[in-house]
Amino acid sequence: MTDLGIDFAQKVLDEQPFSRLLGARITAFADGAATLEVDIRDDLRQQFGYAHGGLLAYAADNALTFAAGTVLGPAVLTGGFSVQYLRPARDGTLRAEAYVVHAGRRQAVCRCDIYVVGKHTGSAADTADTADAAEGEGGAELCAVAQGTILTAPPRTDA
Amino acid sequence: MTDLGIDFAQKVLDEQPFSRLLGARITAFADGAATLEVDIRDDLRQQFGYAHGGLLAYAADNALTFAAGTVLGPAVLTGGFSVQYLRPARDGTLRAEAYVVHAGRRQAVCRCDIYVVGKHTGSAADTADTADAAEGEGGAELCAVAQGTILTAPPRTDA
Amino acid sequence: MTDLGIDFAQKVLDEQPFSRLLGARITAFADGAATLEVDIRDDLRQQFGYAHGGLLAYAADNALTFAAGTVLGPAVLTGGFSVQYLRPARDGTLRAEAYVVHAGRRQAVCRCDIYVVGKHTGSAADTADTADAAEGEGGAELCAVAQGTILTAPPRTDA
Amino acid sequence: MTDLGIDFAQKVLDEQPFSRLLGARITAFADGAATLEVDIRDDLRQQFGYAHGGLLAYAADNALTFAAGTVLGPAVLTGGFSVQYLRPARDGTLRAEAYVVHAGRRQAVCRCDIYVVGKHTGSAADTADTADAAEGEGGAELCAVAQGTILTAPPRTDA
Repeated sequence: MTDLGIDFAQKVLDEQPFSRLLGARITAFADGAATLEVDIRDDLRQQFGYAHGGLLAYAADNALTFAAGTVLGPAVLTGGFSVQYLRPARDGTLRAEAYVVHAGRRQAVCRCDIYVVGKHTGSAADTADTADAAEGEGGAELCAVAQGTILTAPPRTDA
Repeated sequence: MTDLGIDFAQKVLDEQPFSRLLGARITAFADGAATLEVDIRDDLRQQFGYAHGGLLAYAADNALTFAAGTVLGPAVLTGGFSVQYLRPARDGTLRAEAYVVHAGRRQAVCRCDIYVVGKHTGSAADTADTADAAEGEGGAELCAVAQGTILTAPPRTDA
Repeated sequence: MTDLGIDFAQKVLDEQPFSRLLGARITAFADGAATLEVDIRDDLRQQFGYAHGGLLAYAADNALTFAAGTVLGPAVLTGGFSVQYLRPARDGTLRAEAYVVHAGRRQAVCRCDIYVVGKHTGSAADTADTADAAEGEGGAELCAVAQGTILTAPPRTDA
Repeated sequence: MTDLGIDFAQKVLDEQPFSRLLGARITAFADGAATLEVDIRDDLRQQFGYAHGGLLAYAADNALTFAAGTVLGPAVLTGGFSVQYLRPARDGTLRAEAYVVHAGRRQAVCRCDIYVVGKHTGSAADTADTADAAEGEGGAELCAVAQGTILTAPPRTDA
């Protein structure tokens, strides 16, 4: 377990130009778990008005890696991951909660649950589009689940 | 097999605000295959200067879905995918080449190979960072591979 | 949610010659969750004496599908899954606990945790081989995690 | 690239009791690729008479690992893999063709295509069950595709 705190994690995130472009933030980072959030801005949507699947994949990738970083330290890289989409996310904030399932010396396997929270802030018509409107104002709905492997970074010559 | 052409595909991509934000374009779209390209701008990088893994995941997600669209038609959604990262991509253009492995009535399984092309356009120092510099100027290097499932879109009430 | 009970699930399992060959049994089947167990017989091992990874993959595949069956009904088929191996399993029983993460009309996404339970029944030498011997006699250790998609079965002509 | 030949590979396979139980054999092993075959015996089926999905998952797991072994050497272990099922396989032989997509010092990423070959040896009624009967006598049909990561084995204390 490393001593890195959430300020360190947010600093690393801020050093990722792509994460700044998307407006991501780290809201939890400790003890084998990390949470990354992204507000669903209009420029992050796909053609039907939902958050783009690629945005959810970004959130999964990064949250998995930060969760692993809490136990493997800062020198990590993502080996790969699998993501399944469950529901479209229209409004509010994507919250990717990742946690370490198992960590060895060379890699960690993590899972991630991606929720949309504080949604239904749009018009009534938007809300009516969804099958799950009853879950209602401000609730958290599971939008995607992911599972992946994060490696300790090798010397720079072995990518 | 659908009659949709590359102009239609580019139009759909342009209707995705997220794809416009990232500067993606469709360069092939026919007969069970689609290619999506994104230039590696500085605002698409992670903290070590490479293209962010989330960008590669976006490219995989979208290319897989467009490839499936060539056989399933335009009303498709991504069920999920798995991506493995092989090498970091520093400079040039990401080219995600996706193709249908099998298509049924309800879903298609596709694979995607993500290359970086036209790299080594940076400084000599950048080039020296990589283990594979010998592959050289203008070549295509495989950076990530993905495999996923794309579904025909159900009625709007079943997400 | 279906009315199928554990007796029905065991009957389906018994109709799978492959599951009989491996000696699998269903020990839980209700409300979006199913548990499948296999005793680690000597003919189920790989060359180093551990349960073969293919056995764990079988257990994941089948447990995921039975879990989905509790909500989708008996006419289901596995679309695919991802499995990550965490630790080798030497002795005792593999217990694959699967649960539905999200179910729609056409498919369910499930996760599965595969434990080895009642292990360390071998010799002291066997126990000393493992890094986690301290977890000791009779405990449950997580050996693999999986995540997959199960579909409602289409008409027989669409495989 | 290692000097191991197909005889060595078959010997390793024969040291796996589970592979002997299933009747698996290695039919190719060289230069970043390996092929594993299993005849579809009656005791390897599921309840509808098709080869069990778990058998295909076993074939994927093992073929991926042997393919990696051609470049990483014999001390390898499977990190994990993703498999998508495309078509049921009724009669004949499962042939899992795996190949290395990228190999580094610590791991290899491989893909695997699983075919059923020499099928349609059953009754006409069996043949009529399938949507693809026209592909006919003795052809090879793609049944599943997989993608996975194989690691060089760490010291025995780190599972």
